[in-house]
Amino acid sequence: MSQRELVVLGTASQVPTRHRNHNGYLLRWDGEGLLFDPGEGTQRQMLHAGVSATGITRIAVTHFHGDHSLGLAGVIQRINLDRVPHPVDAYYPATGQAFFDRLRYATAYHESAELRPRPIAGPGPLPAPGAPFELAAVRLSHPVDSFGYRLTEPDGRRIVPERLAAAGLRGGPLVGRLQQQGSVTLDDGRTVTLDEVSEARPGQRFAFVMDTRLCPGVTELAEGADLLVIEATFLDADARLAEEHGHLTAAQAARVAAEAGVRTLVLTHFSQRYPDLDGHLDEARRHFDGELVVAEDLARVPVPPRR
Amino acid sequence: MSQRELVVLGTASQVPTRHRNHNGYLLRWDGEGLLFDPGEGTQRQMLHAGVSATGITRIAVTHFHGDHSLGLAGVIQRINLDRVPHPVDAYYPATGQAFFDRLRYATAYHESAELRPRPIAGPGPLPAPGAPFELAAVRLSHPVDSFGYRLTEPDGRRIVPERLAAAGLRGGPLVGRLQQQGSVTLDDGRTVTLDEVSEARPGQRFAFVMDTRLCPGVTELAEGADLLVIEATFLDADARLAEEHGHLTAAQAARVAAEAGVRTLVLTHFSQRYPDLDGHLDEARRHFDGELVVAEDLARVPVPPRR
Repeated sequence: MSQRELVVLGTASQVPTRHRNHNGYLLRWDGEGLLFDPGEGTQRQMLHAGVSATGITRIAVTHFHGDHSLGLAGVIQRINLDRVPHPVDAYYPATGQAFFDRLRYATAYHESAELRPRPIAGPGPLPAPGAPFELAAVRLSHPVDSFGYRLTEPDGRRIVPERLAAAGLRGGPLVGRLQQQGSVTLDDGRTVTLDEVSEARPGQRFAFVMDTRLCPGVTELAEGADLLVIEATFLDADARLAEEHGHLTAAQAARVAAEAGVRTLVLTHFSQRYPDLDGHLDEARRHFDGELVVAEDLARVPVPPRR
Repeated sequence: MSQRELVVLGTASQVPTRHRNHNGYLLRWDGEGLLFDPGEGTQRQMLHAGVSATGITRIAVTHFHGDHSLGLAGVIQRINLDRVPHPVDAYYPATGQAFFDRLRYATAYHESAELRPRPIAGPGPLPAPGAPFELAAVRLSHPVDSFGYRLTEPDGRRIVPERLAAAGLRGGPLVGRLQQQGSVTLDDGRTVTLDEVSEARPGQRFAFVMDTRLCPGVTELAEGADLLVIEATFLDADARLAEEHGHLTAAQAARVAAEAGVRTLVLTHFSQRYPDLDGHLDEARRHFDGELVVAEDLARVPVPPRR
């Protein structure tokens, strides 16, 4: 199976701390690299994490607050400096077009790479040419226009070796053709279909949720996610602050994840008001019993194996 | 004497490395804090160096390449977030006004502090209201418009205790009035002038030079500087590259400093092509025998004591 993992580049909300840079998350998904919400300093965090500009195929910004997007300027310039040979699609709220343009042309540089702006006018599927997944934007609730992202691998079929053997097939080129064409005709004239030697293989799902207060979009994004990255700026004791500023608490995020059947839950985007994150861990654990990660900068979180 | 020191925030040219952030230099000068060339990530480097946004009174950008200015966006937002109570003057080449505006309004934030743009139309003195020094811009030679900065403390008078005693004064409020007014009349009717109890005290000078190839501006900036911060991107072996891209070598910087009578020389803005900086140190040492610093991130360099 191809490598699918989240590389955490930064985990601080609003302002960086000694141990936490502004936001930044790279999702490696087969040959793709999706960079979410690059805050200031993402370019250098990539270096620390061993992520090259060439590894980025798409950039997705939830909203245009600085801690989620100021790093765009440096990342775009680096993509050009390093002459990244493939086009890079950039998704962002269309209402932030002026911010995107300012960050794209923040200072003088030579454009050598192809950046394809994909402003998001409203919720729904996003153009993702060549991607082995579908990408969609879902509206969130924050003082400025904010969209979460959901990545869905199409459902497929998984070959069952026993059924393959029963059908008289033992691997080799015929199986490749069977997977590509849906059926093959054997030397003895029999036709074997993919369906009879395989079982359904549900596609994997990834969701990225920030910044937002609780709203239907959070639930929609989280539904059935194998890996959910979600902001947990506050603790429940500060739920009023969270609501007021358009953020989530660790408990809220964990409850949504539990109800949505999330498998791996990554909490991030922590307010610097908390000296440590024991509270976030405890609070989330009370509601969610799957794989739980309180994110640290430069952590790597694997997408869990297929169900 | 008040604290005068350089706080080095970043020392890398073009791209950051594991140990070197993009440029960034804070000059603490009595109550002032001048932030020079904030590259991306300067906000976080300030945190590591113990520099608060409130400590910044002026920002000076030599030119609008990203490694010298992308950090403006974060620094300006932080100045507003922290509600810095004093105005902050921002100096930059007027031809980069569009870049300055894009960085100033790169993303959504609430403006609560007073930033005073001071675009530089050409070389000469700069407005520096309330400053205990004069500030001037000098044109450099780089592919884009670039200005170096020179800070000059006005010459003053230094009281000589022996002369004071000879004049019948032994400190106290009369000396304060003498320094303020230039002369005082004693109880016995005699008038004592500041000149007769003091000697000339030359003002201190600081210069900031980057990015540039060798040109008259470099010499003009360096002349008699107590502390000179100067780019030394390359080594002499790569002098052709330096000339081509509008940069200096360590030897060139050191020779200028030696001829200009510089006291403390700080080399910085190193190309990542050099695995270590022994070459820069050796090359500079051959030409300059004053205090020599090959800058490291987070280093602090004192302005040397008065001559």
